[in-house]
Amino acid sequence: MNTNETPPARTLPKWVGPVIFLLTAGIIVVLALLAVSIMERRWEAQRPALALKPIAQWEPDNAVWGQNYPREFESYRNTRETGTRTKFGGGPPRDYLDENPRQVLLFAGNPFSKDYKQARGHFHSIADVTGTKRISEKSPGTCWTCKSTDVPRLMADMGVEQFSKTPFAQLKDRVTHSIGCQDCHDPATMNLRITRPALKEAFAAQGRNINEATHQEMRSLVCAQCHVEYYFKDKALLTFPWAKGRGVEDMLAYYDEINFSDYTHAVSKTPMLKAQHPDFEVYSHGIHAYRGVSCSDCHMPYRTEGGVKFTDHHVQSPLLNIANSCAVCHRWGEAEIRQRVESIQTKVAAVKQNAEDALVAAHLDLAAAMQAGVAEADLTGPRQLVRHAQFRWDYVSACNGMGFHAPQECTRILADAINGAQQARLAVARLLAAKGHSAPPKHPDTSTREKAAAIIKAFEAGEKVNLL
Amino acid sequence: MNTNETPPARTLPKWVGPVIFLLTAGIIVVLALLAVSIMERRWEAQRPALALKPIAQWEPDNAVWGQNYPREFESYRNTRETGTRTKFGGGPPRDYLDENPRQVLLFAGNPFSKDYKQARGHFHSIADVTGTKRISEKSPGTCWTCKSTDVPRLMADMGVEQFSKTPFAQLKDRVTHSIGCQDCHDPATMNLRITRPALKEAFAAQGRNINEATHQEMRSLVCAQCHVEYYFKDKALLTFPWAKGRGVEDMLAYYDEINFSDYTHAVSKTPMLKAQHPDFEVYSHGIHAYRGVSCSDCHMPYRTEGGVKFTDHHVQSPLLNIANSCAVCHRWGEAEIRQRVESIQTKVAAVKQNAEDALVAAHLDLAAAMQAGVAEADLTGPRQLVRHAQFRWDYVSACNGMGFHAPQECTRILADAINGAQQARLAVARLLAAKGHSAPPKHPDTSTREKAAAIIKAFEAGEKVNLL
Repeated sequence: MNTNETPPARTLPKWVGPVIFLLTAGIIVVLALLAVSIMERRWEAQRPALALKPIAQWEPDNAVWGQNYPREFESYRNTRETGTRTKFGGGPPRDYLDENPRQVLLFAGNPFSKDYKQARGHFHSIADVTGTKRISEKSPGTCWTCKSTDVPRLMADMGVEQFSKTPFAQLKDRVTHSIGCQDCHDPATMNLRITRPALKEAFAAQGRNINEATHQEMRSLVCAQCHVEYYFKDKALLTFPWAKGRGVEDMLAYYDEINFSDYTHAVSKTPMLKAQHPDFEVYSHGIHAYRGVSCSDCHMPYRTEGGVKFTDHHVQSPLLNIANSCAVCHRWGEAEIRQRVESIQTKVAAVKQNAEDALVAAHLDLAAAMQAGVAEADLTGPRQLVRHAQFRWDYVSACNGMGFHAPQECTRILADAINGAQQARLAVARLLAAKGHSAPPKHPDTSTREKAAAIIKAFEAGEKVNLL
Repeated sequence: MNTNETPPARTLPKWVGPVIFLLTAGIIVVLALLAVSIMERRWEAQRPALALKPIAQWEPDNAVWGQNYPREFESYRNTRETGTRTKFGGGPPRDYLDENPRQVLLFAGNPFSKDYKQARGHFHSIADVTGTKRISEKSPGTCWTCKSTDVPRLMADMGVEQFSKTPFAQLKDRVTHSIGCQDCHDPATMNLRITRPALKEAFAAQGRNINEATHQEMRSLVCAQCHVEYYFKDKALLTFPWAKGRGVEDMLAYYDEINFSDYTHAVSKTPMLKAQHPDFEVYSHGIHAYRGVSCSDCHMPYRTEGGVKFTDHHVQSPLLNIANSCAVCHRWGEAEIRQRVESIQTKVAAVKQNAEDALVAAHLDLAAAMQAGVAEADLTGPRQLVRHAQFRWDYVSACNGMGFHAPQECTRILADAINGAQQARLAVARLLAAKGHSAPPKHPDTSTREKAAAIIKAFEAGEKVNLL
């Protein structure tokens, strides 16, 4: 037994030590670079929060907000692009009166009969509201409500009622910034907030408190400040006719109860309702709303730039951005998604056109009955049918999306519009018959915008347009 | 230094060895039991294939097939349950004529005006086809086509044409087995197969080969052998009017081209079309078909018993089995699913009823025009409108599902039905006016089944029903 029994140490080759050292060093360098990259991306994502400059309470200038939020601002600025056509290709906004002269006659007696172009992006709101023929010297300040980030400040300064009753033209110098950040965001926290009182009041009228809305609901409700049906109470106060509900029948009951009409039809003398753009109400009846998809999810989808995820503020038709909107949930090809949407819209458009044909004929038939000397009292029933039928049609027609937001609901409403307009025509035919007129009234040629406008002008001037 | 330096061996307690042995044995036993269970379940799943008894080529008796496939047979046998009501609660099949006397008048001159009950399950097909008043001594053998597993054999024996032209009553003794296995399955392979020639011919007429259908497509196509629109070519040959397409306009164009009508309306003398039950055509226009969901996926969902997965052959409304059908894809509560389906159906039902009201009135208005002495030639136009309008309505109304299978398409079709019926009424009102009748025709009371039937009887007897 001796210590020599310990076996000799097995020595490694001399090059092993340096190689392990270098390998370890290399791995450390790579990991460090990765860590730096991660930190950079985090920093990039957090930079705005770190570099925030305070924004004044009523700051109307989107560019000032844009210093803190350049991506949101730059994408918002893209709303100046006017490529809003989808199915019908690119080009300038559509002129609905050129495309579809029926609408010239349907709105006879209302400014929409003279100027009805496809809406452009939010960027153009000041230019468009000051350029439209639908605004006149008699228009109230209310018409500014949805058009500018200057409005919350003016409402705070003047009070809502005073703001609304001030003539439109008098406010022109103080309203200069288009729709933007201030309309939907709290400048201190960037939380979404409701800046227009009509929506809050409409919620209150339904016994609901809008302050309890979730963030996801707010991603639709900020849009619902403006993309809704409304009327001017006492000729100025912006009011949503929601007290009985948001369906088309609810609104008709509301308007009938207060005996409201927007205009008297120049041809048929019917007390008409002009639907505005009940996008939010129609959307509420559809499957996307049912599944909790907000307006913003489709019209302002998320994007990433580098390490930053942000909301694309280029509000537009999802059909112009299918990959980032529809296709996030619907994993089909873009062409298939487009085809699917357009097949729904094509069906709505066909029923809508049938409603228009029936309504145009009903207005002209009513005018013929007046020429035939039918008593006014006998025309009340048919006129009420036309009033309801046209509001139903307009509830669908005036909206964006050609019924896509609630296909069955919109088709159902248009079916009722057709039914009402045809019932009015039948009643008028019998009234005409009682006056000895069995032949169909002679409808003048209103097949172009110019011809339709000329006929309306003759009616308004009290000239004889022989319909019998 | 001595050998005592070796440390004493550390001995384990004596009980350790037996415990390890027992634990190991226990684990082996448990694993063996698990293996046996797995083997049993596999065997259970494969047993049918192992124990198959040959089934004769034309075997009509479902019970014989059931010896090989007891689960499928037993679930099929549940189709004898008549709880087919959904929205309206349980109970016997609905009698549509009692519930909705408008249909008595709409089908005046057709057997559906006298006997129109809700369909019962496949188990009852022989009892129901021999019990209905819609089958008469003049009915051809064709009326057996969709009712029995004896039919494939008879068609093979007699030839399709001879089978179809043989009077219904003459075949009664040879057709005794209700709809079942033979109708959809190859007895040798159990593969799905098409046994009725009309569907194959309809595919061929569209330039398609049904033998190229996938298994998933076959899970709808076996249903499409019968749940379709059809007519009797040369008064006996079952034919689908699909040559121009499966849409309602395609079928109208087809029927107009061959100048076909099912019956002449007893009140309005309109050459009418009776839609059968174009369930497959309507389904083809809906979202479920678009996403590749077959009839069987919802109406015959998969089930498991022990280790065996099988198709539930209790064909029924998914609303009676929401958890296994709808809820497999739509992960909502059953009450919510039901509410969602019924809200769609309620909207369709409302538009459908408006179409019925317009159509009933149109038939009576046409009868009034005849009484007023309006020339037959002048009635051709209004009658064509009514013919088309009522087929549109019936295309939706005659189907199962109250439009649920394609909500927008059905609502669109009903809108067109309303439009056509009202246009007919307007034209007739002017014809009546030209004969000096300006007041609305006096429509008799047809508000109950009995009252409607009495009026029709008077018309058929040539009695004077004063409408002017």
